[in-house]
Amino acid sequence: MSRVISGVELLGAWASPYSIRVQIALNLKSIPYEFTEEKFYTSNKSARLLEANPIHKKIPVLIHDSKPISESLIILQYIDEKWSCNGPSILPSDPYDRAMARFWAAYVDDKWFPAFKELEKASRDEDRGAIIERIHEGAMLLEETFVKCSKLKAYFGGDSLGYIDLVLGSYLGFIELTESATGLKIFEEMRTPRLARWAQRLSLDDAAKDVLPDAQKLFEFYMMVRESQKLEQINFLLR
Amino acid sequence: MSRVISGVELLGAWASPYSIRVQIALNLKSIPYEFTEEKFYTSNKSARLLEANPIHKKIPVLIHDSKPISESLIILQYIDEKWSCNGPSILPSDPYDRAMARFWAAYVDDKWFPAFKELEKASRDEDRGAIIERIHEGAMLLEETFVKCSKLKAYFGGDSLGYIDLVLGSYLGFIELTESATGLKIFEEMRTPRLARWAQRLSLDDAAKDVLPDAQKLFEFYMMVRESQKLEQINFLLR
Repeated sequence: MSRVISGVELLGAWASPYSIRVQIALNLKSIPYEFTEEKFYTSNKSARLLEANPIHKKIPVLIHDSKPISESLIILQYIDEKWSCNGPSILPSDPYDRAMARFWAAYVDDKWFPAFKELEKASRDEDRGAIIERIHEGAMLLEETFVKCSKLKAYFGGDSLGYIDLVLGSYLGFIELTESATGLKIFEEMRTPRLARWAQRLSLDDAAKDVLPDAQKLFEFYMMVRESQKLEQINFLLR
Repeated sequence: MSRVISGVELLGAWASPYSIRVQIALNLKSIPYEFTEEKFYTSNKSARLLEANPIHKKIPVLIHDSKPISESLIILQYIDEKWSCNGPSILPSDPYDRAMARFWAAYVDDKWFPAFKELEKASRDEDRGAIIERIHEGAMLLEETFVKCSKLKAYFGGDSLGYIDLVLGSYLGFIELTESATGLKIFEEMRTPRLARWAQRLSLDDAAKDVLPDAQKLFEFYMMVRESQKLEQINFLLR
């Protein structure tokens, strides 16, 4: 898709959850966009990225009609507000429901998913056990949140993907990767049956299926980075 | 103001910037509310706070018609959306302007103000010098942002207080405290003339003047906490 036609370009990275959620949102709203893959290596950030996001120097950056917008949650809200007539709303319409969607999206980003990063770094079994316990507790909180927000429809957002779906869903690749690496099952039938089915549904959704990274490809990428002794670069992805 | 009349209660703390910004927003929208002062001591959190915000256990919490809303930026957006017909809008109407307001508010909370906390903890002159430099650079970025957002009117929000005004303005007490303690001048005529005048205007604004803490009172509170060897409690306020 040409930059001229749509006026929308995304500076992103295929394996970054923060980039993935923006891609799903653009698909959901049927906005054609040009995707510019940014290299993962800190020292190799493109001049275009540094110019578009001089404060944080991070992907994703959405460039719309030459104006850059940074920070994934801010971009999602921009997409929802700018293209309010295209497809379903990302945030609910009721102010309290909007506040809840913002709260749980921030919970996933700032509290729940960071535990996966801690797990990756933890070496003592005791520490790992405590972190895994927190991950399971968080998943159960999210299961309760699903019941409240979805009104027992397909998604947190109801009949279509909404704000929490985009945020939590963007981590599905990394969650699967963690499951393969550790033998854990994060969203499973016994503890979190609704989230187990939600994850399956989301990975088949038209807006998400071609964007969510393949677990095997993600694993190979992860091993490549690990082996090249550049583990800290994963943090670039995960932030 | 009675809980029955307004249905709005704020669990807050007089010295907390996160609580102060919510109070200014409620004043701006002319919403009567009951203010419940929460004790600062971690071990003394009220049952009411723990019940209203079980995830983060932190003030501020806005309770509206018995429904609790946590996290100050989420509360500001709730107030703006719920009482959209009361008084001026907190966020601008244009999607790009809204994204910019969210971006700079998050910059102040997550990047600029944390430098003040680092300054408080830093002991080596060399470290302090570097931190002070970052604080001044940030102030100059905010001066540029003021020019772009305010369109040279009184506030970042234009003719009336907006999202960035509430967020940055809520720190004015701590900024003054830092100025008294260190001899620094953060918003001063030479470097950031517009922000210098903005700060004066904001501290006299009807919505803010009775909420912004008195510098002397804040200083005494700070010294009391410091002397009682409970310095870490300041972090409760500052987060």
